[in-house]
Amino acid sequence: MGGMDTLAQIDLGRGQVTLRPARPEDVQALVDLIAADQLGATRDGVRDAADLAAYTAAFEAIAADPAHILVVAEMAGEIVGTMQLSFLPGLARRGALRAQIEAVRVAESSQGSGLGTAMMGWAIDEARRHGCALVQLTTDKSRLDAHRFYQRLGFVASHEGMKLAL
Amino acid sequence: MGGMDTLAQIDLGRGQVTLRPARPEDVQALVDLIAADQLGATRDGVRDAADLAAYTAAFEAIAADPAHILVVAEMAGEIVGTMQLSFLPGLARRGALRAQIEAVRVAESSQGSGLGTAMMGWAIDEARRHGCALVQLTTDKSRLDAHRFYQRLGFVASHEGMKLAL
Repeated sequence: MGGMDTLAQIDLGRGQVTLRPARPEDVQALVDLIAADQLGATRDGVRDAADLAAYTAAFEAIAADPAHILVVAEMAGEIVGTMQLSFLPGLARRGALRAQIEAVRVAESSQGSGLGTAMMGWAIDEARRHGCALVQLTTDKSRLDAHRFYQRLGFVASHEGMKLAL
Repeated sequence: MGGMDTLAQIDLGRGQVTLRPARPEDVQALVDLIAADQLGATRDGVRDAADLAAYTAAFEAIAADPAHILVVAEMAGEIVGTMQLSFLPGLARRGALRAQIEAVRVAESSQGSGLGTAMMGWAIDEARRHGCALVQLTTDKSRLDAHRFYQRLGFVASHEGMKLAL
């Protein structure tokens, strides 16, 4: 991914939002956004140089692989949203490519502005452009607002999302 | 992945099972195994050359990317199980690498033999060897036996698994 590329321009009424691939200098702000979330707060944050190194290594792994796009939503020079879109090959469903969305976050100041809907709309369109047969994500069972949000977009809660911490 | 590599040898009592990466010549048998499943039957199967070409293209995409391992379980020259293991980078959880498991199938003749448990045990160990912090999968809500199976292995059904067909 060219780091300077614009993925989409979104007019939210209250302002113009640019979707673009994340750059190395975004890592701290992205971790802050992930940690600002109620569930992320217990798991994420940059406390020292070792933390920043771990996040930077993950950023580099994402950026190095065209199967992943770490998306930043920027408004007036500030990061107001993020999500990761990944394209996963598989045999099932007639060899369908799947788009998987992880780590969707909208800054508190932009919640209710339509930004989340616009971000997901772009991701779904991008999945179509890549020829994906399916978009999938998991969302914590405690995030009831998120379930309604995704259902309004057409997602069906057909599966149990199971996790095993190592 | 070297196509001839053995990933693991499993002694099931009733016989020796080899886990190995899938080879191009396995595609038809793997699709048969996916289609033999109650849910897969409505979505999968090789009816004509176009189907086989679609599955083969998906196989090649998986085999070309070291982030994915399409695993075959072979006993006495027959394919008795399969699963796909993928390693996905991400920023959340301190830049954790995740292992994702998709398309787990055990042939009817090998169900109840401990093969599924052994396959998952290998996948979890492999995730640890790759430094993953998490193993994740989704399983259709109608597969109640599968939920119990994964819970016995330590998985927690903490998330809704949401899908949007395109």
